[in-house]
Amino acid sequence: MNKCLTLDLKNGNSTAVYMSDDLESLRKRLMESYGSSFMVSDDNTEYIIAPVTESRLSIMHGESNKNYKSILEILDKALALSLSRDSIFIGVGGGVICDMTALASSLYMRGARLILVPTTLLSMVDASLGGKTGIDYEGYKNIIGTFYPAEEVLISSAVLETLPESEFLSGMGEVVKHALLSSDSALYDYLSDNSALIMQRDKRALSEMIRLSLLVKCQFLEKDPEEKLGIRSFLNFGHTYAHAVETITHYGISHGEAVVYGMRCALKVGEEIGVTSHEIRERSLSLIGKFPFKRVSFSGDREKEAIFEATLKDKKKKDSVVRFVLLEDMGRPVLRSLSKSEVISSIL
Amino acid sequence: MNKCLTLDLKNGNSTAVYMSDDLESLRKRLMESYGSSFMVSDDNTEYIIAPVTESRLSIMHGESNKNYKSILEILDKALALSLSRDSIFIGVGGGVICDMTALASSLYMRGARLILVPTTLLSMVDASLGGKTGIDYEGYKNIIGTFYPAEEVLISSAVLETLPESEFLSGMGEVVKHALLSSDSALYDYLSDNSALIMQRDKRALSEMIRLSLLVKCQFLEKDPEEKLGIRSFLNFGHTYAHAVETITHYGISHGEAVVYGMRCALKVGEEIGVTSHEIRERSLSLIGKFPFKRVSFSGDREKEAIFEATLKDKKKKDSVVRFVLLEDMGRPVLRSLSKSEVISSIL
Repeated sequence: MNKCLTLDLKNGNSTAVYMSDDLESLRKRLMESYGSSFMVSDDNTEYIIAPVTESRLSIMHGESNKNYKSILEILDKALALSLSRDSIFIGVGGGVICDMTALASSLYMRGARLILVPTTLLSMVDASLGGKTGIDYEGYKNIIGTFYPAEEVLISSAVLETLPESEFLSGMGEVVKHALLSSDSALYDYLSDNSALIMQRDKRALSEMIRLSLLVKCQFLEKDPEEKLGIRSFLNFGHTYAHAVETITHYGISHGEAVVYGMRCALKVGEEIGVTSHEIRERSLSLIGKFPFKRVSFSGDREKEAIFEATLKDKKKKDSVVRFVLLEDMGRPVLRSLSKSEVISSIL
Repeated sequence: MNKCLTLDLKNGNSTAVYMSDDLESLRKRLMESYGSSFMVSDDNTEYIIAPVTESRLSIMHGESNKNYKSILEILDKALALSLSRDSIFIGVGGGVICDMTALASSLYMRGARLILVPTTLLSMVDASLGGKTGIDYEGYKNIIGTFYPAEEVLISSAVLETLPESEFLSGMGEVVKHALLSSDSALYDYLSDNSALIMQRDKRALSEMIRLSLLVKCQFLEKDPEEKLGIRSFLNFGHTYAHAVETITHYGISHGEAVVYGMRCALKVGEEIGVTSHEIRERSLSLIGKFPFKRVSFSGDREKEAIFEATLKDKKKKDSVVRFVLLEDMGRPVLRSLSKSEVISSIL
C-alpha cells in the first residue's frame, strides 16, 4: 500500500492514509505490520481479516447494533485478550464498525492505539478521517462519542466491488459534497469527467476519486479538528436537512442521498435569500445530475412542518440557534440561521 | 473565589483553578456564573448545590456506583434537560463523581463543557486536575475512561471540615507524594512546619497546602498531558504497590494510605538496589511520619506472592513490562523494572 496523504491535526495527532487498488496488499500490510493486533469487523467484512488473525471480534452488521452494548462487547474482548494501552485496535468495516472500534479504543485504558480499515465508500471518504467516534443512544444518532483520530487509515478500493449500489451512491453523496466545498476544481472536474468509470467501480478511478475527496476534507479538518471554530462544520453542508429527513423517514433513505437532498434544499434557499448565485446553484446541480441519486421530495404541509421541526434538533446548534451551511461560491460555504418560512419554502 | 493557578496542557486546553476558604463564595460563583448548568453530585455533596440549581442529578455515593450505568444515568438526565454541546456539566463531589461527570461530559455529543468542584482532599489534589476520567468495569479500576480536562476547578477548603478522618488522610497520602516528587522544597517544608494545623483542618493552611500540591502536579502534567512520554507516570510514585494492595485487600485500605505504603516499599527497594540514598529515604520517611497514616504490613509468603502477582496487572505497563517509580533524589523520580525477588523483598 502507498501512503497518499497525512492529516496533521492541531493537537499534535496525525493520521496517515494508505491506499491500494487490490485486497492482497491490504491483507499483507495488516498481517506484516499488525498481525498481533485486535481486529473488529462485522459479519460482512470478517472475510477480509479471517486469513490474517485470530484476535478478532465480529459484530452483527447494521445501525441497530451501533449501541453501548456493542462497545462493551469490544471492551470485554479486549480485556479477555489482556490488551494493554499500547495495543492496537483495528476496525474493519463501514461507518458503524469504524465509529464503534474507534470509540472503544478511545475508552480502553483512556486510549489504546487505533487503525481504521473503512470498507464502504461512505466510511472511506467520511467516517474514517477526522476522529469522530460514536454510538447511537435513546434514538439519537451518534449522541455519545469522542474525538479520537486513527493513527492510520488503510483503504483498498477493491473492497468496493461488492458494495450494494445504494450504499455506493450513499458514499457518492459525500464525495459530491466535497467537490462543491473545495476551493479548487480538481475533484469537481474529476467527477465530471469520469462519472461513467466511477459508476462502473473502476478501481483506479475510485482510488483517485477517494484521494481527491480526502484532500478536500483534510483542508477543513486541519483548521478545526474538534469542530470548535465553525470551520469543520462547513462539512455539514446539506446535513441539517439530511438529518431531518433521515429522522422523519426513520432512516428510510441512505445518508449520502439524504445529503444530496439537503444540498439541493440548501442551494434553493441560498438562491432565494440571495446568498447563492443562480450560476453556482446550476453548476452544483449539474454535478449532482451526473450520478443516479434517488430523487426524494416532500410536498405535504405536515411533512414540511415535520422536517422543519426535525431541523431544530440539530446537534450542532449554538446558543439554541440552528445554523445552515449555504454556498456563497464553489468552495466558499457560510453559516446562516434561517427563519421558519425560509426553511419550509426550501423543502423540495 | 480567587484564581490561584492555570494549567496549560500541550494540546491547547487549559484548566483554571479557583480557591476559597469558605462555602458561600463557592456557591456564589456557581450561582452567578453557572446557574443554568447541569450539576451532578452524590447524596453526600448534594447539600452544596441544592440551594443553587434545580438542574441537577444526585447519584448514590461510593465506588460501587462508579460504573457505566451511572454514566448512562448522567447522559439520560442531560438528554432530558435538552443540553447541547456548549452546555456545561459540573461535577460536585469526590473522585467518583468528578471522574464520572467528566467522562459523561467528554462523551455527550463528543464533548460538552466541564467544570469540577472536588469535595474531598484526594480529589482536590489529584482527580480534579489533569483530565483523567473513568469508571470501573469487570473488576478493573478506571479501565474505561478518556482524557478530558475541566475548564475550571473550583476548590473550597471549607467543605473539608466534615470529611471523615480516614478520607482526609487518604488525600494527605497524595499530598506527601507531591512533596517528595517536587524539585523544590516549598511543599515539603510547608507540610513539615504545619502538620498540626493541617490535621486540625485549619482552612487557610489547607488552602495553601492544596495550592502548593497542585503546583507540583502541574509541573508533571504540563510536560506530558496524556501520559505518553513517561513524565506524567512519575506521579504514579507508590502506585504500582498501592494498586496491588488495594486489589488484594479488596479496597480495604484507603487510596492515599495505600500510596503511602507503596512509597515506603519503593523507598526500600530503591535503597536496596542503590537508586535511593539512605538519606533520601530517611528524609522521605520523616515527612510521612509527621502524619498519622495507618501502618499496614504484609508478612506472609502467600500475601507477598499475591501482591507481586497484582503488580503485574498494572495498567501503565509498556511492552508487557511493569515499571516502578523510584526516587533518585527529592524531585528526581526514575522508572525501573524490578525482578520478582526485588519486588518480594521490598514488600513491608
